[in-house]
Amino acid sequence: MRTLVSELPGVVGSTVTLSGWVHRIRDLGGVSFVVLRDRSGMGQLVFDAKPDVTVESVIEVHGSVAANEKAPGGVEVRVQSMRVVSPAALDLPFPVNQDPGKTSLESILDNRMIALRNPSILSIFRLQSTILRCFAEYLRGLDFTEIKTSKLIGTGTEGGTGLFSVDYFDTKVYLTQSPQIYKQTMIAAGLERVFEIGPAYRAEKHDTPRHINEFISLDVEMAFIESEQDLMDLETGILAAIFAGVRASNQKDLDAWKATVPDPELCARIPRVSHDEAKEIVSKETGKKVYEISPEGERALCDWAMKTAGVEAVFVFAYPRKSRPFYTYPAENNRTKSFDLLFRGLEVTSGSMRINRYDMLMENLQAFDLNPEGLKDYLSIFKYGCPPHGGFAIGMERLTQKILGLASVKEATLFPRDRKRTRP
Amino acid sequence: MRTLVSELPGVVGSTVTLSGWVHRIRDLGGVSFVVLRDRSGMGQLVFDAKPDVTVESVIEVHGSVAANEKAPGGVEVRVQSMRVVSPAALDLPFPVNQDPGKTSLESILDNRMIALRNPSILSIFRLQSTILRCFAEYLRGLDFTEIKTSKLIGTGTEGGTGLFSVDYFDTKVYLTQSPQIYKQTMIAAGLERVFEIGPAYRAEKHDTPRHINEFISLDVEMAFIESEQDLMDLETGILAAIFAGVRASNQKDLDAWKATVPDPELCARIPRVSHDEAKEIVSKETGKKVYEISPEGERALCDWAMKTAGVEAVFVFAYPRKSRPFYTYPAENNRTKSFDLLFRGLEVTSGSMRINRYDMLMENLQAFDLNPEGLKDYLSIFKYGCPPHGGFAIGMERLTQKILGLASVKEATLFPRDRKRTRP
Repeated sequence: MRTLVSELPGVVGSTVTLSGWVHRIRDLGGVSFVVLRDRSGMGQLVFDAKPDVTVESVIEVHGSVAANEKAPGGVEVRVQSMRVVSPAALDLPFPVNQDPGKTSLESILDNRMIALRNPSILSIFRLQSTILRCFAEYLRGLDFTEIKTSKLIGTGTEGGTGLFSVDYFDTKVYLTQSPQIYKQTMIAAGLERVFEIGPAYRAEKHDTPRHINEFISLDVEMAFIESEQDLMDLETGILAAIFAGVRASNQKDLDAWKATVPDPELCARIPRVSHDEAKEIVSKETGKKVYEISPEGERALCDWAMKTAGVEAVFVFAYPRKSRPFYTYPAENNRTKSFDLLFRGLEVTSGSMRINRYDMLMENLQAFDLNPEGLKDYLSIFKYGCPPHGGFAIGMERLTQKILGLASVKEATLFPRDRKRTRP
Repeated sequence: MRTLVSELPGVVGSTVTLSGWVHRIRDLGGVSFVVLRDRSGMGQLVFDAKPDVTVESVIEVHGSVAANEKAPGGVEVRVQSMRVVSPAALDLPFPVNQDPGKTSLESILDNRMIALRNPSILSIFRLQSTILRCFAEYLRGLDFTEIKTSKLIGTGTEGGTGLFSVDYFDTKVYLTQSPQIYKQTMIAAGLERVFEIGPAYRAEKHDTPRHINEFISLDVEMAFIESEQDLMDLETGILAAIFAGVRASNQKDLDAWKATVPDPELCARIPRVSHDEAKEIVSKETGKKVYEISPEGERALCDWAMKTAGVEAVFVFAYPRKSRPFYTYPAENNRTKSFDLLFRGLEVTSGSMRINRYDMLMENLQAFDLNPEGLKDYLSIFKYGCPPHGGFAIGMERLTQKILGLASVKEATLFPRDRKRTRP
């Protein structure tokens, strides 16, 4: 029966079997210390002589558990026997047991298969698993149904730009940029409240710390809402649930990056400012005249929110019509019932109330110079009774990045795809 | 404040606001009955005169809740006022309020956006949402971490056949057939136990009720196992959790298809037979000499399991080496440490213990005539210490299909993609 490293403090005095990876070897002549890593953490093994094993090898050891104040966790295992389950070659391409801050992002990603063994790097994805859990649990608690929709579409909702094409038997299809048409279909089909967790694709040539070409979109759509304010309320609840979940389950992972999550209680205080107000705030904070909210402006807005509300996030609503997709519900003065959430200086969510009236949608298609012919399936949703609704999408990797304070969104992606990177 | 139809029995005597879709209108002269559909179910509205509204329109009504033994659920709402929120055109392309058994699969899928409103059809996807929940919850309870890996790869693990190619900037990539290499990477990176829910692609020309070209793969990988028996134990637990969850949450959805799930208690009795034994059983049951287990043979095996163990499922293990991928752990007599799960006559899972030794893997590549050059990233996992491990994948749509007894797996797919179908 295998014991996990994290269980050792509870079994001092007994004999145990441990399995895991050799994280570090320290040979002091008569005695050798080995740090063993398993899924629960790290523990100290003591050998009478230098063990014949390399770093990163997988071993199984039998030994007795003894208290030792100087050992990490206050316990160590005095090894009686060791078996090398799987030996590691000596030419390790990545320094697994060192601070990844000393290694370039390029090297981390080029050697991804091994770099992921680094405990700090791996901790990013333990935390990400909690985000996935809390997002789904919170929404299920509000009667949302989880859906899984196709990632291959015949034509783009918003035209063919920014789409990757796929050779599909004798025809061409495209990778979806978002499940937009499908989540709207499902709320109109009667589910009313749906969420989807799935990949989304953007064939954009950006190569910045904020962009990746494939990402996981945490998508939400909800019917019978009054306005986009209901959606911001919903997202506030989701964020509070995620922050609470991360605090409860991932303190070690936060510590690995010297990161903290906002107090879940403070989420209700996230300021909501219109796009016009946001520009004024940025002007005031940066002392520059502002025409569009730049990445610098997004950071200034979050700093302002921290100063005024104690939380590094801000909802910006009422974006101009020309900057949002054709299905966005219009508002007065050429504005829209739309919003973004900026968190720690980065846009992590975009959302809106959607047009649910067939005639209004047809008008908007004309205004956006789009051909209704290619959108026939989409338009049928609205022709046969569709409740008022809206939704949003949270970028999973961006949220992870900002929770942990990572320099690039690629660090928060297991196997990132960018313009040049298609492996591993 | 909106009341849901399902809440009506608890508020007899009060005045409520309901919102939803007009499912059916029955005009009896002096009085009209309207069936209102919302996400919670269906309820009866009573109007003094024929309401000016079409089937599938979204309405909001105010009225008083009265007990009526003859009404569905024992209550009805006597409507005082109605507002048409979103009118439906009269040329409904699909009979939403009729038994979908009378409609062809082609028509259901061609008119998918509207066909999904049919309560029986929609119920398939409520149940599917429970499968997703129970799969994840059960595994999280056993310390599994959820991962999200790229669906775009530079080269196929098993060569380029059966892959869809994607134009990716100036190069070509492929849609993944499975997250195989990535889930193995993550168990070796130290997570030990991972699961992934994501799309998988097969560019196969099959056009049968069992095949789709894009499906959701419920993937599991687990380290420090002794043999493939541990994996069958794990899947048994997953199935029992899913069946119990469906029984608790989806009785109405099961009823819509006159379906039942196996007793979760019986899952532990699912027979495990070797591939050779399975062929003998099929021979005996069908009276025919058997060389390979055909779809007919799979049905015969499940019938046999029902007779002998009271459960319509069977694990078949020890498949011949030539019929399994190169990474499958070999066993005696040219067999492998692999297994399939057949459920109600259909393969819904394929799994195996994997080779975790670098030298054995290199030998196997040669035996399979595969080039190690294209698998460099994959091979590095094993070069630097990899514990014994294995895993499997459950086809979400096939499991849904078989739980509900649907004729085609396409019925269990929201927006199926087959050789000819790329819309809606």
